[in-house]
Amino acid sequence: MSTATGSELTAAPSNDGVDAAVAAARRVITSLLHTGGDSAAGMADVALRLNEVADHLDLHAPGRHERLVDMWAGEGVTRHDPVTGPENALAPPLRLYGLEDGSVSGRVTLGMPYQGPPGCVHGGISALLLDHALGVANHWGPGPSGMTGTLTLRYHRTTPLFEELVVRARQTSTEGRKIHTSGTISAGGRVCVSAEAVFVAKFVERPRS
Amino acid sequence: MSTATGSELTAAPSNDGVDAAVAAARRVITSLLHTGGDSAAGMADVALRLNEVADHLDLHAPGRHERLVDMWAGEGVTRHDPVTGPENALAPPLRLYGLEDGSVSGRVTLGMPYQGPPGCVHGGISALLLDHALGVANHWGPGPSGMTGTLTLRYHRTTPLFEELVVRARQTSTEGRKIHTSGTISAGGRVCVSAEAVFVAKFVERPRS
Repeated sequence: MSTATGSELTAAPSNDGVDAAVAAARRVITSLLHTGGDSAAGMADVALRLNEVADHLDLHAPGRHERLVDMWAGEGVTRHDPVTGPENALAPPLRLYGLEDGSVSGRVTLGMPYQGPPGCVHGGISALLLDHALGVANHWGPGPSGMTGTLTLRYHRTTPLFEELVVRARQTSTEGRKIHTSGTISAGGRVCVSAEAVFVAKFVERPRS
Repeated sequence: MSTATGSELTAAPSNDGVDAAVAAARRVITSLLHTGGDSAAGMADVALRLNEVADHLDLHAPGRHERLVDMWAGEGVTRHDPVTGPENALAPPLRLYGLEDGSVSGRVTLGMPYQGPPGCVHGGISALLLDHALGVANHWGPGPSGMTGTLTLRYHRTTPLFEELVVRARQTSTEGRKIHTSGTISAGGRVCVSAEAVFVAKFVERPRS
């Protein structure tokens, strides 16, 4: 899909099917953190209801290898990764768009599950988002893509929760199998975290049936 | 708690209350990924049931600021962070122990929600775990603790899903407000990812009522 903000490079969440169930699971994760341990919310019953949902899903789950083969079939964008995946409740999800200048960009607001210091995004969550965005930038960039070799993060200031963040990344150069990529997370126009990485053009073989 | 594996530095999950509900939410996240989108699992009904749980919890949730104040009250270990928190369904959770030699260590096996390359841990998830473990190592180490300034990760080989990983970290030196810390993630005795960081001795003020 191409829009005014660029070509979408991540899987667009659907409003039904597993994506809707995953969106509801994200609500549960967040609501559990907002409610906390001292409430009269009847957590034993909540645990029971959630375990019933998991039991029900498990009845319909294929074996692990079969599922991995299915996940990695086709050549499209992944739907299950922990950053952009509409099928992964760990993912905010971050949606990334490819711009004409060769960079990728996305906006995301992170809530309570992503907290590190009080009211701030966990430094490791910023690393997670940037590592993934750099990888997507390599797919969008002119050179090859690959796997992270070295990733360096610089924390310039705290990254706020509950405010819109802008994630940007771009491939900066390539030399043989080495790919140089950089990115930032900004809030209110100021860079909070910057990243530089060297990727190596190699891949893990996809599981086959 | 002090055990044969050292002093536990992270919050021990309870078998009831919110911890049990969060453990069940983790099962839901994993089962949704294992079941996927093409099943006869009735995802519309699953979404309905999960949204009902979230709606129920939201009725019992205090306001955001009130909740943040409560989360950060006391001086104990956090229960809500996305790496070790028993109250955060994003967290595997990783439990870390302080050893007599000044290092910290923990074992964890990661499943489908943490996948990057096929069958492997996402590089950004390794960064998340290591950033947090380094922070805990600073609390256990002889010098001051603080916030991440620079974090460098080196990916030596892929990190497997579904196998026990060992996470290790230690404070290596301090100079004024700068704290040097390093760590590794290993599988089967081989280092998969190593991290070096410079932390800065500063803190975000805790929210007060």
